Amino acid sequence: MSTHTGRRGGGRAARQAARLHAVVDKVPFITRTMTPVEVLSEEGLELIESNAETILEQVGIDFRDAPDARDLLREAGAEVEDERVRFPRGLARQLVQATAPKTFTQVARNPANSVEIGGMNTVFAPAYGSPFVRDLEGGRRYGTIEDFRNFVKLAYASPYLHHSGGTVCEPVDLPVNKRHLDMVYAHLRYSDKPFMGSVTHPERARDTVELARIVFGADFLEENTVILSLCNANSPLVWDATMLGAAKAYAEAKQAVLLTPFILAGAMSPVTIAGAATQTLAEALAGMAYVQLVRPGTPVVLGSFASSLSMQSGAPTFGTPEPALVLYVMAALARRLGVPFRSGGAFTASKIPDAQAAYESTNTMQPTFLGGVNFVLHAAGWLEGGLTMGYEKFVLDADQCGMWHEFAKGVDLSENGQALDALLTNGPGQHYLGHAHTLANFETAFYRSPVSDNSSFEQWEEEGATEAAQRATPIWKRMLEEYEPPPIDGAVDEELREWIDRKKASFPDSDY
Amino acid sequence: MSTHTGRRGGGRAARQAARLHAVVDKVPFITRTMTPVEVLSEEGLELIESNAETILEQVGIDFRDAPDARDLLREAGAEVEDERVRFPRGLARQLVQATAPKTFTQVARNPANSVEIGGMNTVFAPAYGSPFVRDLEGGRRYGTIEDFRNFVKLAYASPYLHHSGGTVCEPVDLPVNKRHLDMVYAHLRYSDKPFMGSVTHPERARDTVELARIVFGADFLEENTVILSLCNANSPLVWDATMLGAAKAYAEAKQAVLLTPFILAGAMSPVTIAGAATQTLAEALAGMAYVQLVRPGTPVVLGSFASSLSMQSGAPTFGTPEPALVLYVMAALARRLGVPFRSGGAFTASKIPDAQAAYESTNTMQPTFLGGVNFVLHAAGWLEGGLTMGYEKFVLDADQCGMWHEFAKGVDLSENGQALDALLTNGPGQHYLGHAHTLANFETAFYRSPVSDNSSFEQWEEEGATEAAQRATPIWKRMLEEYEPPPIDGAVDEELREWIDRKKASFPDSDY
Repeated sequence: MSTHTGRRGGGRAARQAARLHAVVDKVPFITRTMTPVEVLSEEGLELIESNAETILEQVGIDFRDAPDARDLLREAGAEVEDERVRFPRGLARQLVQATAPKTFTQVARNPANSVEIGGMNTVFAPAYGSPFVRDLEGGRRYGTIEDFRNFVKLAYASPYLHHSGGTVCEPVDLPVNKRHLDMVYAHLRYSDKPFMGSVTHPERARDTVELARIVFGADFLEENTVILSLCNANSPLVWDATMLGAAKAYAEAKQAVLLTPFILAGAMSPVTIAGAATQTLAEALAGMAYVQLVRPGTPVVLGSFASSLSMQSGAPTFGTPEPALVLYVMAALARRLGVPFRSGGAFTASKIPDAQAAYESTNTMQPTFLGGVNFVLHAAGWLEGGLTMGYEKFVLDADQCGMWHEFAKGVDLSENGQALDALLTNGPGQHYLGHAHTLANFETAFYRSPVSDNSSFEQWEEEGATEAAQRATPIWKRMLEEYEPPPIDGAVDEELREWIDRKKASFPDSDY
Repeated sequence: MSTHTGRRGGGRAARQAARLHAVVDKVPFITRTMTPVEVLSEEGLELIESNAETILEQVGIDFRDAPDARDLLREAGAEVEDERVRFPRGLARQLVQATAPKTFTQVARNPANSVEIGGMNTVFAPAYGSPFVRDLEGGRRYGTIEDFRNFVKLAYASPYLHHSGGTVCEPVDLPVNKRHLDMVYAHLRYSDKPFMGSVTHPERARDTVELARIVFGADFLEENTVILSLCNANSPLVWDATMLGAAKAYAEAKQAVLLTPFILAGAMSPVTIAGAATQTLAEALAGMAYVQLVRPGTPVVLGSFASSLSMQSGAPTFGTPEPALVLYVMAALARRLGVPFRSGGAFTASKIPDAQAAYESTNTMQPTFLGGVNFVLHAAGWLEGGLTMGYEKFVLDADQCGMWHEFAKGVDLSENGQALDALLTNGPGQHYLGHAHTLANFETAFYRSPVSDNSSFEQWEEEGATEAAQRATPIWKRMLEEYEPPPIDGAVDEELREWIDRKKASFPDSDY
């Protein structure tokens, strides 16, 4: 182990090194063993479903600047008036249920990292979309392509993140019309986990598909999902041309589309839990129905991003109880509909990885996992309401993702798990530290955090009286230093680079 | 609002003041609306119950230095051999189920603060037993009676803590044989919420009862529970004379006893989840059966304190997945047995209120609440594995307790909650900020944290770039400054003081 991070003594560094590699059961995704937590009765869920149908029928959804989308929906039975599309009761649901898969495999460049999205599975992906990055030493600054690559590498190196994500941060040092090429290349080259494509322009979505065809083969893409991309509704009740165009591009290539109403309740929806859930369902149903019409059978994921507002400032707030309840409700609605569900993440409004950040993140990640979310975008790194991607926050959150791997296993009721022999052979007052059963199980008995400090006060003080975020710094630095890129066929890499160079050259130089 | 805490500008102080008083629905305890989360099937729970009976039957429990306890248990059908007590299968369970109440009221000095312990109710009490206290300015130091009184006052002032607790910190500046008198007096005088009694010696338990008789009346105590006290097993499989003596003193006065196996799995029990749960159940059953024999009908609470160990150091670790699973299992076992359940709390091994503290605390408080814990000791203030009571941590945790009040309400499906009219009258693309439904509901729509910072990065920086713990400091200071003691009858107060003075005078001066 290198000693260059040695702000601290060898004791801590050695322990951290040991823990960093004490990974239990690396798996490509989590399969939960417990039934999801429900907070509403069947009648309550039916009521929300019925209200969503009433919205779709009486108010409808605007499909803006998208005449082709409206034509498709009209042909399928919707009423179209200008940009507004109204769905007869049950139509959107029928369109989704008729052809959308309940669960699907997103194939990774390394097949061992392919993920199953849906059912009892949970997939963790890093945070998405931040213009800023932050680390303890460098502070807050605009993200660059180097930061982007760093987070791709960190997600690749973490045993507890299953997915490379998408816009892990905005590389604002690159031209807007070209940066998607470097982003997709980074996912394909510096990781071999599954990834997300560009959605900022339909042409960028098609570029993403082209790059994937180079890596996976065009024929393979016809039969397999290798890209999952995030299309947000423009709530309330609007799908706009950019997102519809990106969704269409992916659907035409039969690549998965994640349709997410993005709602700060009180601003983009009614302020109540049931109101926010009703609107989310209506918007998502309309979007998913459209995707099924573009190409039936295209994998879709019902997304829900819902949070609360500060009454003082109108700023978004996170980790509060009301969005947790929306999450549980939406997860149940997705299960009833029969499509995979995306929500949650390590959300916080805090600017730094402090106690607020951890309380808020955990208050969302608990319902995320217990509610049965299938695809967890923003599982690691999120700060400042999504404006900032944090290096230390990433390490802290990834540790939490590790804990969910252990929790998901549930209670071992094997003979060894019951430990009845140990209980019968160990008398009152005798400790278990040296018992054969303990020795046989100790190594794997408890999740071991690489970043928590469990030492005595005196030892902790002697080692610098660090807070958690400070202990995360050497961890991400070491992960980047020890990073080794996954292998890639040299000809494929060459073809990727050439395709990207040609594409970049097609833009005028001034187009920054 | 005073300005003396004015390290920050008026903007933040004013907002904090507003939020500090924006308390929604002060209630004496929480009544949950959702069914508890279950992680094991009925068959799994039956298996653990059966194994616990096997332990009680074949190994038994030591009742040490407690011949009277063993005599009682022998008369009830147990086999006694030296200190060991073996229970025929089902005996302990029958003794508990025959007379222990499923739920009981702990009457507070102010009847409006009386709590119902059991069923769908959850009661939050502060942390218990720390020799040290910590605040940001003073650092870590031994607790004093002034700190003790401060935490009694803070729990009294917090709308989200329902209970005054017990040893909120150890007042180590007072003689060991007298400090319980000052502690009980502080609970009775500086709060009017329910409280916990001394358990460090049977005589101190009897002193607690005597002081309660002065306040509540001796006759009242015959029919009512006004004290709840914590008796820990000496795991594995031992009840010792001190705890049994205290339990007996309270049971004789028909005051409630909380019997808690305290288990760091791998040291005091087998290292597995099922093993720790099996042993916890066996130990608790034996203790509760004994209390029922002392005085049938005495309220008992089945307690479980279970955590994991660091494999590196043997230090206790908190907020990890395995103890969360033990908690869910034990809560289910208590429900099946039909007694109230105590577990959980804002546990952490962190020395300070940093991200580690918040991740770990929330990872325990989530299962605590969702699992359906009835009495939550350690709900606020805990640091450093229980060695330290933190002022800022108390504020941060109490805020979390507030959030559970909101979560517990579940999803409002009233007409107003459904918000269908709002959804039908507000078209696509129109925000809800000014909608009549929003304006009618905004004030109470979202839990408002007094300590979270949701402002912009720029505003946060301008206001000092604080972390959460720093924002908690002025809050506890203001709570103490604005504290006003609850009224007490002057004659009762006089009698309490005189009784305590007489008792103290009965000890030799040198007995520190």
